[in-house]
Amino acid sequence: MDPMFIVFDIDGVLADFDGGFIRAWRQRFPGHPPIPPAERRNFSLLDDYPADQMTMVQEIYHAKGFFRDLEEIPGAIAAVHELLAMGHDVRLCSAPLTRYVHCVPEKYEWVEQHLGADFIPRLILARDKTWVHGDVLVDDKPEVVGSRTPTWKHVLFDQPYNRHVEGPRMNWSNWKEVLGV
Amino acid sequence: MDPMFIVFDIDGVLADFDGGFIRAWRQRFPGHPPIPPAERRNFSLLDDYPADQMTMVQEIYHAKGFFRDLEEIPGAIAAVHELLAMGHDVRLCSAPLTRYVHCVPEKYEWVEQHLGADFIPRLILARDKTWVHGDVLVDDKPEVVGSRTPTWKHVLFDQPYNRHVEGPRMNWSNWKEVLGV
Repeated sequence: MDPMFIVFDIDGVLADFDGGFIRAWRQRFPGHPPIPPAERRNFSLLDDYPADQMTMVQEIYHAKGFFRDLEEIPGAIAAVHELLAMGHDVRLCSAPLTRYVHCVPEKYEWVEQHLGADFIPRLILARDKTWVHGDVLVDDKPEVVGSRTPTWKHVLFDQPYNRHVEGPRMNWSNWKEVLGV
Repeated sequence: MDPMFIVFDIDGVLADFDGGFIRAWRQRFPGHPPIPPAERRNFSLLDDYPADQMTMVQEIYHAKGFFRDLEEIPGAIAAVHELLAMGHDVRLCSAPLTRYVHCVPEKYEWVEQHLGADFIPRLILARDKTWVHGDVLVDDKPEVVGSRTPTWKHVLFDQPYNRHVEGPRMNWSNWKEVLGV
């Protein structure tokens, strides 16, 4: 087996961003029903929620603790450990919010808590993922573009808001088959 | 002219890490003379200071505000803006400390303060810089290695502690000549 260089996005791939959003929304705005994750149609929450709720949406994910407290998408952490044990070189790549004050350190906290302190050096923060190497980038974003021609092949992580994209879709049940490991 | 993909390290290249260290050391440990930056011989401060001062050294750069308050190495910021104006694609890449709590968000603060909020998306945090693309990586570290064969050519940024390395050396006076721009 040839070791592969595999890059995983975090939010919506390893960390349950939508689940955390719904939980925080219900707590903060109990009078406003959130959009159920299964009914989301756009990658950005700001495109799914009505324009007059934009500041409410941002208030949720700009809050201290939001990224730190996201739960694991079931199966993700075990799969990452299994890929490492197989001899593959795994990295995590997250594109932090422009409002970085909580998001950025909390990405490190999340990795430390869920994958252990030894995994921290495998975390890469980059807004433009085309600058990061890899054979494969697993990402829930429908199109990952930037200022370079990437070396990685984009493998789409299946989410309700990216079902309009054709091609192979990965989840934490079929990952071995889709990655070919 | 072909646009180049240029990656700059931050500490010791754009930001005056050693100057900030000396300043903070004198303030915190007035009875202990620091090693003058010109007399440093190893990339890591921990290899230059005596073993019994290791925790003192770490106390300085683990402190809140240390990375935020570093001053610009004269000429660096103007050169970065000039490279962008020439049409080159410039990114910053910093390898954060394992103890990330202050270092990581303060890298973003530093970029925002010295290069502006528009520059934040150009910041990449990666412990292993071989995972980051580029035609050139300008770094003061004598050897930049990792788990991949990098695509960039390492251009050494001149510092007292890397003078044992052969080859071209860049500073903020000769940068146009060394980068060939």
